[in-house]
Order: sequence, then structure tokens, then C-alpha cells
Amino acid sequence: MSVFSHSAFDGHEHVAFYHDAKSGLKAIIAIHNTNLGPALGGCRMWPYATDEEALRDVLRLSRGMTYKSAISNIKLGGGKAVIIGNHRTQKTDALLHSMGDFIESLGGRYITAEDSGTSVADMIKIGERTRFAGGVVEGSEHGGDPSPTTAYGVFVGLKAAAQYRLGKSSLQGLKVAIQGVGNVGFRLAKQLHAEGAELIVSDIFADNTERAARELGATVVEGDAIFDQKVDVFAPCALGAIINDDTISRLKATVVAGAANNQLAEERHGDMLRAREILYAPDYVINAGGIVDVYYQRTGGTEAQLKTHVESIGDTLIQIFDRAAQTQQPTGIVANKIAEERFMKV
Amino acid sequence: MSVFSHSAFDGHEHVAFYHDAKSGLKAIIAIHNTNLGPALGGCRMWPYATDEEALRDVLRLSRGMTYKSAISNIKLGGGKAVIIGNHRTQKTDALLHSMGDFIESLGGRYITAEDSGTSVADMIKIGERTRFAGGVVEGSEHGGDPSPTTAYGVFVGLKAAAQYRLGKSSLQGLKVAIQGVGNVGFRLAKQLHAEGAELIVSDIFADNTERAARELGATVVEGDAIFDQKVDVFAPCALGAIINDDTISRLKATVVAGAANNQLAEERHGDMLRAREILYAPDYVINAGGIVDVYYQRTGGTEAQLKTHVESIGDTLIQIFDRAAQTQQPTGIVANKIAEERFMKV
Repeated sequence: MSVFSHSAFDGHEHVAFYHDAKSGLKAIIAIHNTNLGPALGGCRMWPYATDEEALRDVLRLSRGMTYKSAISNIKLGGGKAVIIGNHRTQKTDALLHSMGDFIESLGGRYITAEDSGTSVADMIKIGERTRFAGGVVEGSEHGGDPSPTTAYGVFVGLKAAAQYRLGKSSLQGLKVAIQGVGNVGFRLAKQLHAEGAELIVSDIFADNTERAARELGATVVEGDAIFDQKVDVFAPCALGAIINDDTISRLKATVVAGAANNQLAEERHGDMLRAREILYAPDYVINAGGIVDVYYQRTGGTEAQLKTHVESIGDTLIQIFDRAAQTQQPTGIVANKIAEERFMKV
Repeated sequence: MSVFSHSAFDGHEHVAFYHDAKSGLKAIIAIHNTNLGPALGGCRMWPYATDEEALRDVLRLSRGMTYKSAISNIKLGGGKAVIIGNHRTQKTDALLHSMGDFIESLGGRYITAEDSGTSVADMIKIGERTRFAGGVVEGSEHGGDPSPTTAYGVFVGLKAAAQYRLGKSSLQGLKVAIQGVGNVGFRLAKQLHAEGAELIVSDIFADNTERAARELGATVVEGDAIFDQKVDVFAPCALGAIINDDTISRLKATVVAGAANNQLAEERHGDMLRAREILYAPDYVINAGGIVDVYYQRTGGTEAQLKTHVESIGDTLIQIFDRAAQTQQPTGIVANKIAEERFMKV
């Protein structure tokens, strides 16, 4: 067993394991870095097979949040929480309350939010025991769910990337293949459609693609075929690791810009995209709208301030693209360096 | 790696790993159980070779503190802290301050105190950053060092055990072999001497044995010979694991009662002592004076209240001896059961 010497430890400040016999909660909170502010990151619930798997996940994700907040220019650090368990069968009020106690016990160094396996309702339940549950705004349009803002940030970022790579100032006639038109992907599709883009979509759920076809005139393709479409932009909005040895050679798009997390299967796939002259909008930069939203929820900024901040995702991407071109490096590496310059110097 | 499934986990509530790049601190705090109150336990500093070693130690010691506080009838839970490092070469003010920040971040669920590798001065330094550092009383006789109270508790307990086993109401002429006459052992020796006991002592430091010979008329023996003395009571006040396959057959004493931690090498050595009709005063029961002292320091009890409480160690031992005789079980097992009845039922 190792935590300090774990390959994913990377200088984490605080890693806490919590167990409550009564509620059955087993959870880990990882706080990677708080130089810029308290660590914010979602709380996953997942039936990890081993502690090791849970630890690896939470360390990796927590570190990612430090980079995401830093690149997004918000005064937050990086953290993440995982609850070990099946979110369909093992989630109880007692367990969520216990998770609230755990978060509260860290005194505000970690602030939680929705994530895979947890919902706005869960955040409300957790929030009954801690002041440090984000992603909940009572009476607001989406109840605090930040995914509409995520979608808006991806839209802004996609537009900036397309403009940068293709030199087009309008989206009129731009061909975009969207993998996944669920919560975030469909909202992205709607905005692209409204500005005249042509859409090709895929989704594992037929009702999602049917809605996109019906409401937005999207062309529907089945499964893997989404990688082979003759489009300008490929927008992954579903699974991770979809940029890999198999798919890179199939892509006809010259821009990859979408909402999915961990789009590159491995770091070297960033080099491969660059070699093929495909412009990659680093996933954690373009999909940061959600965390910016949660940040404004907590700090009480206005809708207009939030919108302006989310729109700066486009400027950040252009800064990254410029430096990547100058230094001949993959965009993901450049994004990491800019983030590190911000959170390490403090 | 595992924490939740670690063989020493035993239902711990909270295990936190902390790292501060600036000061170089790497530390673990384990909170075993807080049913009876906040978790109190010492902070060790030790150059553990691996994280695994540090984790095993802190989990084992933290659990022990739950049992110790419960059996001692104080409203505290069990916890422990370890700092990974060499206390002679790697201890700095910055590191201790950082440890204070770590303890403070847990909001009072864990309260620290001196332990191997840390001193009263270190607790003062840690206390500059947290409200939850015990074992420090400015202006008091021992500066908050609880070891005189530990010695008094061992004296009371030894007397109760000798009385129980040998039917003697006075210590006059009682022969006691003390292994280790340092901080605690020498104070114990002084009190035994004052009541007329005859002492045989050993210590790895010659100045310690010389002082006992000079001031208390103790007979000095070298090293291992302490196990072979024809005495009534063997009082281990130095190393752990000194009750083992080798030593049990050598003991001529009919009572084992001393201040050392973890006196039994393995649990089965408790059965072996019972088989040989040697009455064993469970280590964590008899040496609990220190934690009772720290408890009164924090709760503000009077000297008289503290003394009365420490003297109840004798009653607790007699309760354990009685139940052990009735149920024909080793005294250590009986002590654990009584402790569990207290901290588990809450």
C-alpha cells in the first residue's frame, strides 16, 4: 500500500479516507492543491472493485481539477471525492448525510459538487450536513446543475477553434460530428444549429439521436461511424479515450473540440493529432464552463459576469493555440504549462 | 494499496494523508473511533521505510487508543498521528507548524500529544497552529508532560495486582524487577521504594541504573538477566514484546505489571501467562495515567480529581481480574471486551 509514493500522488496536499459503519459509507477525498483557493471538484459514486482503483481515480481526477481551475482563471484549487458503492442500489439519505459530515470535517478545504453517480438532489442531501456542497441553487432554472453552462463553454470554445483553424468567422455551413447528444451534447448541438452549422450525430440512446434529427435536422449515424464522417469538426461529448490509435487515422475533421473528459487515450495521442495537423482543444479547458458556474454560484457573481467569464474560454484556447504553434508542442501540453505557471507560482 | 481493506483497518472512521511540499511534511492521522469523544492520541515522528509501515503503525496505535480511553472511563475516542521522518535531523519549526495546520484542518476530531520522537516543545510549536494540541501546560511542574502521572497509575495498578495475586496489603518486602528505569520506570521505582519494596533493575543506560542503585538501593542486573530474577512482580517499563516464547518460561514472578506498551509479543502469550498462573495487568489499562492526565489538562479538572481518577486504575484492574477468573480468559481479552462494551454501545 502506498499513498505518498503512489504513482498518481503528484504532491497531493491531503488525501482522506472516511468510513462510517452505521451508514456504510466508504469514501475518499483528495485535495491536490489549494494555492489558488479551496479545492473544488465533483463527488463520484462508483462501485470500485478495490480501494486501489478508487484511490487512483480520485487522485487522477483531483489533480485534473487543479489544472482546470487554474486554466479557467477562477480562485479555486483542485480536489475530488469518491464514494465507493453502487449509486443505484446503495445510495441512502444516511450515506449522503455521512458524506456531508466527512466534507464538513475538512473545514472548507474541499467543496463538493455533482458528478457521475450523484445528482442535484444528492448535493441538497449532502448540503444538509455541510456548508461546502456546491452545484445547488434553489429556485434557479436548472436547480444548480452546471451542465448548461458547460455546453455554452464548449460552444464558445468550438467556435474559437474552428475560426482559428479554418479561418471562418461564421458557423454557417460548418460541418460538425457530435458523438453523444445527451445533456451537454444536445445543448451544444442546438447552439451550433442556431448559427447555421450542419450536424451529424451518434448516441447509444436512440431517443437522443431522434430528438436531434427531429428538432435540429441532424443526420444520424450508428456507433463508430461517427469517426469516419467528412466534417470540419469532431465534437466528442460522450466517452473518454476516444482519441486513440484506432480513431486518429479515421478522423477527417481538422478540429477536435468537445465536452467529453479525458478525450486522449494517452498523452502521445496529442502528438499524433498535431502530426496530422488536427487542432485539438484540450478537453479540460473547453469543458470548464461547469466549474466556472459552480464558482459563481458560491461567490455570488451575476449571470452577466458568469457569461463573460465562460466566453473567455475562447480567448484562453487561442492563447494556447498560439503558444503551441510557436513552440511546436501539442496543445494539451501547452495548456498544462500555462496552468502550472498559475497554480505553482503562488 | 488498501486502506479500507487493510488488515489493521478495523472500522477506522477517518484516515488522512497530508503532504506539504514547502516544509517537507508527510504525515498520517488515523481516527479509529469517536463514539465516546474526540480522538486523542500521540504524534510519533519516525523514519518509516515505507508508507505501508507508517500506515500499519498509525492504524494499530490509533485503535489501541480507543480501547485505552474507553477502559479508562474518559470521554475520548482513539486516534494517532505519525510524521514520516527522522526526528533528530528532519524536525523543523516549519514542519511542526505544518503538522499543526493538518491537525487544525480536522476541526477537533483529533487531538494530539507527545509521543516517540516528539516533545513538549514540539507540542508548543504545533499548538501555534492548532487548538488541538494537548500535553502542554504552561507553568505546570512538568510542562504538561504526562509521564509522572503514567508512573503514578502504574504504581497504583501494580499495587492492586500484587494485592490481588499475593494477598498482601502492604508493599513491605515485595520484590519487584523493573526493566527500564528511565523517565517512567524511575518514578515508579521511587514510589515502590518509599513503600518498602525491594528493587532489582536493569537499563540499557548505565546512568539510569546507577541512579536507582544510589538513591533507592536497587540491585542492578545486566540486560536479559532481569527476566530470571526471583521476584514477586516483573515490571516491564522499557521495550514492547518482552513477554514472548523465550521469556515466559524464565519468569519467576507471579505478577506482570509495568508501564511498557505492547508487552505481549502476540495475543497468545496472554494465554501462556494464564496457563502459568502469572497475573498480567494489561499494559494499556495500567499505563493509562498519561492519557487521563492529558484529558484533565483539556477539560480543566483539578489535581485532586485527576488523582482520584488515576487511582481508579486499581479498581478497573480488579474488575478485569475478577471477570478473567470467572470466565477463565486471559486478562487482556477481558479488558478488550469491557472496553468494547463501552465504546461500541454508544
